[in-house]
Amino acid sequence: MTYLLYYWPGIQGRGEFVRLALEEAGAAYVDVARGREEDGQGVRALMALLKDREGAPAPFAPPVLKDGEIVIPHVANILMYLGPRLGLAPGHEGQRHVLNGLQLTITDLVAEVHDTHHPIANSLYYEDQKPEAKRRSADFLSHRAPKFLSYFEDVLARNPDGPAHAFGAGLTYVDLSLFQAIEGLTYAFPRAMAGFAERYPNLAVLRSAVAQRPNIAAYLRSDRRRRFNENGIFRHYPELDQST
Amino acid sequence: MTYLLYYWPGIQGRGEFVRLALEEAGAAYVDVARGREEDGQGVRALMALLKDREGAPAPFAPPVLKDGEIVIPHVANILMYLGPRLGLAPGHEGQRHVLNGLQLTITDLVAEVHDTHHPIANSLYYEDQKPEAKRRSADFLSHRAPKFLSYFEDVLARNPDGPAHAFGAGLTYVDLSLFQAIEGLTYAFPRAMAGFAERYPNLAVLRSAVAQRPNIAAYLRSDRRRRFNENGIFRHYPELDQST
Repeated sequence: MTYLLYYWPGIQGRGEFVRLALEEAGAAYVDVARGREEDGQGVRALMALLKDREGAPAPFAPPVLKDGEIVIPHVANILMYLGPRLGLAPGHEGQRHVLNGLQLTITDLVAEVHDTHHPIANSLYYEDQKPEAKRRSADFLSHRAPKFLSYFEDVLARNPDGPAHAFGAGLTYVDLSLFQAIEGLTYAFPRAMAGFAERYPNLAVLRSAVAQRPNIAAYLRSDRRRRFNENGIFRHYPELDQST
Repeated sequence: MTYLLYYWPGIQGRGEFVRLALEEAGAAYVDVARGREEDGQGVRALMALLKDREGAPAPFAPPVLKDGEIVIPHVANILMYLGPRLGLAPGHEGQRHVLNGLQLTITDLVAEVHDTHHPIANSLYYEDQKPEAKRRSADFLSHRAPKFLSYFEDVLARNPDGPAHAFGAGLTYVDLSLFQAIEGLTYAFPRAMAGFAERYPNLAVLRSAVAQRPNIAAYLRSDRRRRFNENGIFRHYPELDQST
């Protein structure tokens, strides 16, 4: 079965957390909106999905995964569905919810990163909310980012199966999402992330280990991996970055 | 098995979405922090859970549900776990993910409501971010709240089993959460919500139907249902409200 992923084509964005899981597993998938990027057909397919008035509720926003007739929105929801199918989650139901709890904490972190550059309204340009963005970013970098990173450092440190993974003895989609969150934070806030490896040694090891996994390394070298840019979630605006 | 719910005692907050499901089902549960509110023992139990360094990863934030040894954080995650156990979700795995997608959209709405009064930093008082709160609330009430409410009105309208429920032919936890979201929005933004029943007739019917369910009606009359207040997520600050 080929999975269909629907997400905006020009950015990594929230879709990237799903892509990393599919790529790591070597799963058959079509990145629908990118597949026909040149003639806009892919984006039209995405828009049609969001407006679909038949059958299951149309999703509120992308990313969306289609697996046959099942249409699943929201990153954490998609990953929880894919996890056992891709060998990236435990089979036990209760443990899958523990893993999903970790992923939803990453969801919250990502939402806060988004709001560093859009604290007032998604419908406004960054330039129209710059003073507020500076204020929010300062708080995010001083308090929130360290709180999230310390939390996940701690999750690794006291994993009974060792600090190589966030949960259990093997790779899960949460490890891949932590890699992506760290990559994004480092792109967006290089000054604030200086000294990251010293402050968060387990996260630093995890990040390198994920980057070196053969399927991930091949993906990162491919043109399927878009570069970070200032249309995505992790944006590098030097005026929002600061040493912490 | 008695469920243990861990959440801040003095507010409805995010915990209320879980309470409504437990109350509707008549499930045996202990609201741990409220259970010993008078001597602070309950809040200490909550804080201890968040600092627990043994076994499963300690949660980042409440609400948290404990079911025996399983510790589950995040509202949508808890409800997805409880849903089939309480008879408030379909049994089919793919459909449970569709339902979870709707709940996660409510999660996003609730996060945006929170940010109307805390657009800059959770660590600051509302009074210290009032100009930004006004700006964010204006956008929320003009664009975001109508977008979310129209979306869910539409979800009801094109439910193949009829508009009484968000999903399928019977009550699910998503219906209960929609009730709570509407109650909260009406408390926080009475001016913006004027004409709600005319603009969103299916949501209005759902709201009344949920309020009249025997277990929910009994709960709403009980002192277990705290009143909305300005420490919770849905806060009534008249200066943030506006006609739309």
